[in-house]
Amino acid sequence: MFTNLEHLGLAVNDLEAATALYTTLLGQPPYKREHVASEAVDTVFFQVGGSKIELLAGTSPDSAITRFLAKKPEGIHHVAFEVPDIRAEMARLRAAGFTLLNEEPKRGADNKLVCFVHPKSAAGVLVELCQSVA
Amino acid sequence: MFTNLEHLGLAVNDLEAATALYTTLLGQPPYKREHVASEAVDTVFFQVGGSKIELLAGTSPDSAITRFLAKKPEGIHHVAFEVPDIRAEMARLRAAGFTLLNEEPKRGADNKLVCFVHPKSAAGVLVELCQSVA
Repeated sequence: MFTNLEHLGLAVNDLEAATALYTTLLGQPPYKREHVASEAVDTVFFQVGGSKIELLAGTSPDSAITRFLAKKPEGIHHVAFEVPDIRAEMARLRAAGFTLLNEEPKRGADNKLVCFVHPKSAAGVLVELCQSVA
Repeated sequence: MFTNLEHLGLAVNDLEAATALYTTLLGQPPYKREHVASEAVDTVFFQVGGSKIELLAGTSPDSAITRFLAKKPEGIHHVAFEVPDIRAEMARLRAAGFTLLNEEPKRGADNKLVCFVHPKSAAGVLVELCQSVA
């Protein structure tokens, strides 16, 4: 059961320029910046109602975001859904034939356990499951 | 002021196959199907928390969705934000230098007035503003 469209992740070329742009577009400043060393990304978060917009810039050539932007123009990278029990959802989706990109949940930005579903399993969309943790 | 991530629009090649896939992925069936003659699209809506997932399939060669899928693989097409006063937001964004794809709000799916912001104005993202109307 997916309980919320938790956030939309955007891959951007220039984090400062995109932050200024989205501050104007959304009509409000971001509420948080966070470096996620495990993913080699810098992130900026905006809150819109019950969902977030996450701007993502890679900080190393190995970052998934840097590799994405080497092949594609900047834009939407993934959509993340909040789930109450990520391991239960991973088991449910595996049993239904979805390909998961992570064997086990991993620690993501914003105090979450996360797992990605392969875009080929989800009509071309990179789907993230995330569960809030303390 | 954007008050909610109202929906995420996905362009799909096969609406029935995608509906079955997202019913399994999201763990629930769609709550609505709607043909939008003005846009030449068939739509299927799922509710996830306070946001919706809208599957979109073109019904004519002129449909924006058909033209999108002639150039790109299926996947995320646009993100829509709820606004309380679409004309006020359009004026605010025009004054700030954003390029809007509509001169006036137009009638969209799901009882909304809508306007699109050019992806070149929004870091590669096709942004829709939408206001609920009776």
